[in-house]
Amino acid sequence: MCWTACVRTIYRDGTVVKLIDQTRLPSQIEIIDCLTADDLCDAMRTMRIRGAPALGVAAVYAMALGAERGPDELTAMTDHLTHVADTVRGTRPTAVNLFWGVDQALNTAGSMGNASVAELRTELWALADRLAEADVACNQRIGSHGAELIPDGARILTHCNAGALATVDWGTALGVIRSAHRSGKRLHVYVDETRPFLQGSRLTAWELQQERIPYTVITDNMAGHLMARAEVDCCVVGADRIAACGDVANKIGTYTVAVLAHAHSLPFYVAAPTSTVDLTMETGAEIPIEERDPSEVLSFGGVRVAPEGATARHPAFDITPSHYITAIITEEGVLRFPYEEGLARAVASAATAGARTLRSSNGNEMDGAN
Amino acid sequence: MCWTACVRTIYRDGTVVKLIDQTRLPSQIEIIDCLTADDLCDAMRTMRIRGAPALGVAAVYAMALGAERGPDELTAMTDHLTHVADTVRGTRPTAVNLFWGVDQALNTAGSMGNASVAELRTELWALADRLAEADVACNQRIGSHGAELIPDGARILTHCNAGALATVDWGTALGVIRSAHRSGKRLHVYVDETRPFLQGSRLTAWELQQERIPYTVITDNMAGHLMARAEVDCCVVGADRIAACGDVANKIGTYTVAVLAHAHSLPFYVAAPTSTVDLTMETGAEIPIEERDPSEVLSFGGVRVAPEGATARHPAFDITPSHYITAIITEEGVLRFPYEEGLARAVASAATAGARTLRSSNGNEMDGAN
Repeated sequence: MCWTACVRTIYRDGTVVKLIDQTRLPSQIEIIDCLTADDLCDAMRTMRIRGAPALGVAAVYAMALGAERGPDELTAMTDHLTHVADTVRGTRPTAVNLFWGVDQALNTAGSMGNASVAELRTELWALADRLAEADVACNQRIGSHGAELIPDGARILTHCNAGALATVDWGTALGVIRSAHRSGKRLHVYVDETRPFLQGSRLTAWELQQERIPYTVITDNMAGHLMARAEVDCCVVGADRIAACGDVANKIGTYTVAVLAHAHSLPFYVAAPTSTVDLTMETGAEIPIEERDPSEVLSFGGVRVAPEGATARHPAFDITPSHYITAIITEEGVLRFPYEEGLARAVASAATAGARTLRSSNGNEMDGAN
Repeated sequence: MCWTACVRTIYRDGTVVKLIDQTRLPSQIEIIDCLTADDLCDAMRTMRIRGAPALGVAAVYAMALGAERGPDELTAMTDHLTHVADTVRGTRPTAVNLFWGVDQALNTAGSMGNASVAELRTELWALADRLAEADVACNQRIGSHGAELIPDGARILTHCNAGALATVDWGTALGVIRSAHRSGKRLHVYVDETRPFLQGSRLTAWELQQERIPYTVITDNMAGHLMARAEVDCCVVGADRIAACGDVANKIGTYTVAVLAHAHSLPFYVAAPTSTVDLTMETGAEIPIEERDPSEVLSFGGVRVAPEGATARHPAFDITPSHYITAIITEEGVLRFPYEEGLARAVASAATAGARTLRSSNGNEMDGAN
């Protein structure tokens, strides 16, 4: 069973939202209580919770928390939710799921007419819970579709953490690996440590260890060497935002893996839910790239590594052009280049299925990709 | 002036060899005393001194230390030096300069006929001192040749540390940058932090800061992103061993930089002395790649970053095929693809010049590349 069968990345206990502090892993498993929307936004900003799908669900929980602790009068509540939405949107600019989650909550609130504030609160908590469940089911569908692309005996390179910890459970890229493993395929995973936050060595290695999938941690700069020595068969990564043409924003370093895979004629797969697709952006050039605090580059595991006064850059994401991507694996199926039509169809199909699954009172609920 | 005008990477005080402990930089500047060949070999193995040219000179000093503390009888001394040579050669397998340095010492010892042990010791110390001086002069010639390739305003990416600290002084790749800077060109250097040992953020940043050359530290996985955004104009790196065809072994991650530079049509330069050329190896496939302790990947500065029980790999070098290299900058001039003839000629020319400069009693002294 998946470790998060016991504890999910994010869940709620009454009106308290709980999450695993991912900055403490793997040395400590610490659960944080978020009592307010600000608590949760702070956890998102500081990457205690991260990963596009997890951020999407966290955004809805933040909206529910905002409603729970907000005013008891409906007009004031509406203003308050607008303000909370802005705060949530301001936490991380690149992962589009976060904006999608906020829109889900605002659409639900907007569709409730003259319902009471109490009913609004109940409905937002229920929405968040349903989207959390839907995320797990969605990842398992991604896993099933993607597993078919992974041959028995494959040596797979992954970057960052697109696992259970980047979602509510199961994972996207790591969900594909998990599904392939559970179907009986023998796998070996090369885990890019993924500087500067080390989501690979800290989080992906931890998940693979629990799943008993053989793996090897490497520094990000070793992937090319292993490919040149024919020790890698394919690459699978997640995504933080996918433009309409199929360009993918993902954790810094993903682009380099894609260039290397291309140079060595290796398949490069992106696994992501349709909620990561942003049809309002034609190409990756339009996707905002978060620049984080350079000090995160100048220290390592809390230890300062560069001289005092050193300058650094910290773009947290990069853009992989669609022509470097062999396939995009969504819950709606496996898409191939060119991606425009396939992505548009998958998003539309997911919206229909989502509206059905969520038994929503608002038919537009799954429409807003941004 | 170069910071090492005061303190060189490696130097001697009487019969004690002194070196800067590069594992402590930049937080501490600590000079280590090596009283025996074993002390110095240990410092080489643990990377307190590193960088191919510095290791070449360190190897000769280790032989001199071995002679100094060895037996007083000539036949016993000859056996002893053979043993010391094996120990020195066993410290780091990839940097060929180390083997070159050992051969320089053995050739000198072998050419001394029936000289006394005292004379042998004097001669080995003198050889080490001359080679240390020659290394600085050689790097300055590399710098002058290479500086001509660097346009004013260039934004240069470098990997690892091929600076004063990787040599006796001045540096190879960083020597090119230093020379271009001193000639008045405005430069900006992107410094790959270079996991796992962080020679970039710890050593290269430190050297650039002292030289007042503007720089930005990046994680290794950011180089591709910067190239895609047209923020890099060229790359300059060092080398640990160059095969006859021009394939280059250098710090792990160099190959990835070369693939990225190729994908973005950027010049990729290698700067190295001819003592780094190994004409006995036809291609890079023959160059042994040192596999270091994987624990160096799983922790840093005493901070464990991966879960207990995690497995890792640590190939310390990779091979960049010659067709990815725009030019190889040696003290004998700038070579262009295909490299076979140019490298052979440069090695021969350096041997002639070296024999003259070193006023050696042995004409073969600069011949042995391995």
